[in-house]
Amino acid sequence: MFLSMATWPEIAQRLQDGKRGIIIPIGSHEQHGPTGLIGTDALCPDIIAREAEKQDDLLLAPPFSIGMAQHHMAFPGSMTLRPSTMIAAIVDWTASLTRAGFDRLYWINGHGGNVATIQAAFAETYAPYSLRGEAAPFAHMLKNWWELPQIERICLDFFPVGHGSHATASEVAVTYWAYPERASLGNVTLNPKIAPNGPIRDAADYRGRFPDGRIGSDPTQATAEIGGKIVSAAAKALITDANQFFAETHG
Amino acid sequence: MFLSMATWPEIAQRLQDGKRGIIIPIGSHEQHGPTGLIGTDALCPDIIAREAEKQDDLLLAPPFSIGMAQHHMAFPGSMTLRPSTMIAAIVDWTASLTRAGFDRLYWINGHGGNVATIQAAFAETYAPYSLRGEAAPFAHMLKNWWELPQIERICLDFFPVGHGSHATASEVAVTYWAYPERASLGNVTLNPKIAPNGPIRDAADYRGRFPDGRIGSDPTQATAEIGGKIVSAAAKALITDANQFFAETHG
Amino acid sequence: MFLSMATWPEIAQRLQDGKRGIIIPIGSHEQHGPTGLIGTDALCPDIIAREAEKQDDLLLAPPFSIGMAQHHMAFPGSMTLRPSTMIAAIVDWTASLTRAGFDRLYWINGHGGNVATIQAAFAETYAPYSLRGEAAPFAHMLKNWWELPQIERICLDFFPVGHGSHATASEVAVTYWAYPERASLGNVTLNPKIAPNGPIRDAADYRGRFPDGRIGSDPTQATAEIGGKIVSAAAKALITDANQFFAETHG
Amino acid sequence: MFLSMATWPEIAQRLQDGKRGIIIPIGSHEQHGPTGLIGTDALCPDIIAREAEKQDDLLLAPPFSIGMAQHHMAFPGSMTLRPSTMIAAIVDWTASLTRAGFDRLYWINGHGGNVATIQAAFAETYAPYSLRGEAAPFAHMLKNWWELPQIERICLDFFPVGHGSHATASEVAVTYWAYPERASLGNVTLNPKIAPNGPIRDAADYRGRFPDGRIGSDPTQATAEIGGKIVSAAAKALITDANQFFAETHG
Amino acid sequence: MFLSMATWPEIAQRLQDGKRGIIIPIGSHEQHGPTGLIGTDALCPDIIAREAEKQDDLLLAPPFSIGMAQHHMAFPGSMTLRPSTMIAAIVDWTASLTRAGFDRLYWINGHGGNVATIQAAFAETYAPYSLRGEAAPFAHMLKNWWELPQIERICLDFFPVGHGSHATASEVAVTYWAYPERASLGNVTLNPKIAPNGPIRDAADYRGRFPDGRIGSDPTQATAEIGGKIVSAAAKALITDANQFFAETHG
Amino acid sequence: MFLSMATWPEIAQRLQDGKRGIIIPIGSHEQHGPTGLIGTDALCPDIIAREAEKQDDLLLAPPFSIGMAQHHMAFPGSMTLRPSTMIAAIVDWTASLTRAGFDRLYWINGHGGNVATIQAAFAETYAPYSLRGEAAPFAHMLKNWWELPQIERICLDFFPVGHGSHATASEVAVTYWAYPERASLGNVTLNPKIAPNGPIRDAADYRGRFPDGRIGSDPTQATAEIGGKIVSAAAKALITDANQFFAETHG
Repeated sequence: MFLSMATWPEIAQRLQDGKRGIIIPIGSHEQHGPTGLIGTDALCPDIIAREAEKQDDLLLAPPFSIGMAQHHMAFPGSMTLRPSTMIAAIVDWTASLTRAGFDRLYWINGHGGNVATIQAAFAETYAPYSLRGEAAPFAHMLKNWWELPQIERICLDFFPVGHGSHATASEVAVTYWAYPERASLGNVTLNPKIAPNGPIRDAADYRGRFPDGRIGSDPTQATAEIGGKIVSAAAKALITDANQFFAETHG
Repeated sequence: MFLSMATWPEIAQRLQDGKRGIIIPIGSHEQHGPTGLIGTDALCPDIIAREAEKQDDLLLAPPFSIGMAQHHMAFPGSMTLRPSTMIAAIVDWTASLTRAGFDRLYWINGHGGNVATIQAAFAETYAPYSLRGEAAPFAHMLKNWWELPQIERICLDFFPVGHGSHATASEVAVTYWAYPERASLGNVTLNPKIAPNGPIRDAADYRGRFPDGRIGSDPTQATAEIGGKIVSAAAKALITDANQFFAETHG
Repeated sequence: MFLSMATWPEIAQRLQDGKRGIIIPIGSHEQHGPTGLIGTDALCPDIIAREAEKQDDLLLAPPFSIGMAQHHMAFPGSMTLRPSTMIAAIVDWTASLTRAGFDRLYWINGHGGNVATIQAAFAETYAPYSLRGEAAPFAHMLKNWWELPQIERICLDFFPVGHGSHATASEVAVTYWAYPERASLGNVTLNPKIAPNGPIRDAADYRGRFPDGRIGSDPTQATAEIGGKIVSAAAKALITDANQFFAETHG
Repeated sequence: MFLSMATWPEIAQRLQDGKRGIIIPIGSHEQHGPTGLIGTDALCPDIIAREAEKQDDLLLAPPFSIGMAQHHMAFPGSMTLRPSTMIAAIVDWTASLTRAGFDRLYWINGHGGNVATIQAAFAETYAPYSLRGEAAPFAHMLKNWWELPQIERICLDFFPVGHGSHATASEVAVTYWAYPERASLGNVTLNPKIAPNGPIRDAADYRGRFPDGRIGSDPTQATAEIGGKIVSAAAKALITDANQFFAETHG
Repeated sequence: MFLSMATWPEIAQRLQDGKRGIIIPIGSHEQHGPTGLIGTDALCPDIIAREAEKQDDLLLAPPFSIGMAQHHMAFPGSMTLRPSTMIAAIVDWTASLTRAGFDRLYWINGHGGNVATIQAAFAETYAPYSLRGEAAPFAHMLKNWWELPQIERICLDFFPVGHGSHATASEVAVTYWAYPERASLGNVTLNPKIAPNGPIRDAADYRGRFPDGRIGSDPTQATAEIGGKIVSAAAKALITDANQFFAETHG
Repeated sequence: MFLSMATWPEIAQRLQDGKRGIIIPIGSHEQHGPTGLIGTDALCPDIIAREAEKQDDLLLAPPFSIGMAQHHMAFPGSMTLRPSTMIAAIVDWTASLTRAGFDRLYWINGHGGNVATIQAAFAETYAPYSLRGEAAPFAHMLKNWWELPQIERICLDFFPVGHGSHATASEVAVTYWAYPERASLGNVTLNPKIAPNGPIRDAADYRGRFPDGRIGSDPTQATAEIGGKIVSAAAKALITDANQFFAETHG
């Protein structure tokens, strides 16, 4: 079930039935090297969550699709929220969803650069309750899709060399599976074959270190077929992981 | 062309070719009465923009899909940004896109409740330049899709009675065309047939005045077929309107 | 009755008598072309409200006199709040007045450029209630003085050509009536007689398009005499309109 | 000369003539005991500045009329900005005026409760320059009107007993002089004759300590006649003090 | 007792015993001329408070050690919070301490430049209560250490000439007493012997007026011995002053 | 060398000598179970950095001692900044230090709960440069002291069972070494011996899950002697790690 595609009485009924958990795909729009889509990090969690939704009675929020990507801004097409803006937005999403009665917010994330800001935002949503001495009427869970149970191992099995940490072979494969018309982007040879590694700082520094945008990866290994296998496994893992969180009682 | 589905070198090339305009669908997720989708206001501009993109060389940004909908919060499933948050987000989207080199940002909007905040946000993006005495290197255009040339008249021709101002017959029709599997939602009789009118204030006041969420509308008149005609006309109007803006020289 | 000129026991008494509505003149300080006063948009609603106060038992707040005028900043003497600042200020004015017990805030506005920000601010004041699931204990009404019932028609009857949209003939007339010692400013010929029209963006763009500051107007038509007639009609309209709002019950 | 009543070419000319100083009356709207006007602290600096303007070539900005008065909020009619809002507003006023070319901003203040926030705001306007290593192109001066040279002594000579620190005999006298129709408010006996003293904290605490709003004062001593003498002396002192500041060269 | 060095059950016990007052040393890190330590303004209140703690049952919070020092930023090593940041931080400190149950917060300050911002911050903490019509469950007291009863007189007795107002002889003496290994810094001759006086504005202006950082002082007079005497007197005064505040009942 | 204890000419000299790196201890004040000090997370990095400073020519900033600890607020004595406040403060620290000429900021952290907010703050400091297309003139490094090379292994060697993740045996040992007068706090038996594990959310949830404050630890194993060994190893590791960062050239 998709929040976007539901009516309000359908959502009211669902909440009345005690289904108070919701899954929120969260990602980013930023360069993903010469062969990856700018939307990769927003698309991956959405693709996986949609696959999961086909198999189980889950509710999906609209994707939070622009994230914290200041370090990618030297590559055209990248978009970013400042961390302070992203925190404010997550505070408002949380207030909206908990106002309706949702009490378990499961954020399935596609962008490593979002993690710190999302966790800071969670703390920002809890803080008013913690400072007033009240129990927060909701709980957050953040999960990077590649950290769903078993998934990192599966990805590395497919791509033991050059999986990388940005524009990874596996995330590019996931998007090629979902959008096969773009899979031919991978029919090139990149130079160097495997991108360098290094620290992440501001955008100018980033472009100096990683001239074509990749970090540590050879995404030309990505195929739609492998992407499909990753999506299939990740969707199953997401169903289990999210339902476990939704079933959890408050501490 | 979709920013989400492009690579950064493709965007770099497009900018180098002098195509510095971008279309940003902007909407909201909020109740749309018993027969309308929560995502209606985000879906409509996206549907129309996608139709336009099929017919012309336009670039579409990812949709800005959660807007200012505080007045709808008494209906579950509604989401809102506070105006101050939405302004901060639009400031960041603008900074990101203009950093890349886009200089004409055309926002095609699907939610009347967004208008004030979007225009305030535009002023917020211009203000630092205006206060420093520099020319802003970009210009915004905001257009509600129903105010594209001729479109309001077309909508009222289809629905001369009970078009309304929230959960309108025409916006519901647009979504039924795009998602025909949901068109059967309209096979009901609403009571009253045409919803009341009134002022918009806080959420409790809204629900008191408009118990099922609609304002002034009878959206059961909506059909996928009419929706298709509206989309077709609106897409053409959007192409003309946006290109005119992109061709404009700065004042 | 003027809040400025009252004592707190007088205000306490008024509230105890059930008179819980207040009128707040809101405007801006910005260039109004070669023949208009910088304070025009702050002065007009104040002049009209003061005239109304002579004829009816109304309470007037001090004027909110600096507004959102970033686009005028290339003309010396113009002042602006950023939209985010203006929202914060309106939030505080609202909190102050509703703390005292006022529950109907009628904002009579003199500056078109304020409208979006004021409406965003209203939403900002309602949002905490809407997100907490409480009814807001107050309601706002925004009315541009030239949109008071009949007034636009009256203005256009006086100035069928060259009324314009900034530094309008009617607003300049209103100030000449109130400050006749400045009416001689209009004894000039402007070139062009009627100023051009166009979109409003940042300040540099504005000055490029509208070199002497006017938009679409020939304010040399303004006379104190016509101004007086407009004030007289607008004051009457304001009395009716505000009292209707004050008498309204919450939805 | 009043900014409100000037045209932009007049202001442009003034700046071109090298007159780059401006006087900004700043005050507050808050209870002033049973016999004082809510607008007292906004009115006093404006009254004095207008008197000064009659005698010298000074430029007056519109008054900044709502200040920091959180401690008065238990008395109806009081209004306040939170300090953070007031800082944002002063930042914008400063940016606006310095954008035009003013480089000496003289703030004549009527409300002790404003002082800390105004000085914090000054630092907020200087900080970006100080952190970037640039010289700020402007300087602020804050002066409470009762601290103009000699004025405090004059006030205490008139009211050696019960001058007080809120709703003072001298500020009430100034308003009675300017608005003699309200001078009869003072024809009462207050109990206690001289109000108590004490610390200032939140509004509930304030009302507990100072039940009728006054601190340390017996404002029934105020007369319009004394008020006129204070205004006359203060206006002269303001002329000297402001011009000295305007003539000062930057450090 | 030091909050830093206590366990939470010890603090819980202390609060249960009714000891609900806490002392917070607050200062700044900024240049203090050629012979003074950058930490002077943070160190002095901490030194005095620690001395007091040895003699009485006081609880000391960790020092708030970076303050508002934008005007010193042209001297390397200086650090500042913008006033808006410092207000946000004091709001959070206050919320944290009052959440635990402390209801008397005594801020012993070492930096004149902090005063305005601290007082604005106090108002910011009170304002939500004042605007909601609730009594704030806490009270603040701000005391500059040199304004503790008798201390200013003592300092001026030691340094009748060239005490100054920044990098004062007495504050430098206090640090020399606590850190005698740095007392030899004073074995120089400064030129001019006594630094000039003047207004405080932005950092570039400051450095122009006060080239070596001092204002009005000859800190070479400072000795560890005098410093010890000042600390001894100030610690006693602090004990009396703080306990008087802690014993005070709410208004 | 300590910034607090230096004069500005000493810092100016150091920067002129090309030593542009600085170490900033950053921690938190929050409950650390029945046997740990509230200041533990602020004290540990400071203790280690001070030990390192004895052995190498390092410059230490004053500690950033209050962090993000909203989840601990149900235990008296805990203090927190909201993430948004902490970001603003780190932005100002960064602006201050880079204004002076420092270009390598090494943050040695003692509190896991700070990590997300600190990294979000780093992004906030880089973002203006990244969005303007300029290279940031500085780089940050964040290192948790227990993640210095080898240190985690050393800690787990000392405490193979019940090291835990909050109020850990090793951090408590570090504080006992530095403050042996408090080491007797560990002479108790806790129940359960090893605290439970679980997720971290708001403060009420936290206290429900972890009734005495510890997570996963048995800190009664801590001794001053072991603490000394950890400090010694960590100080050496810090020297190497920080100097490596300071020597690094920008990407």
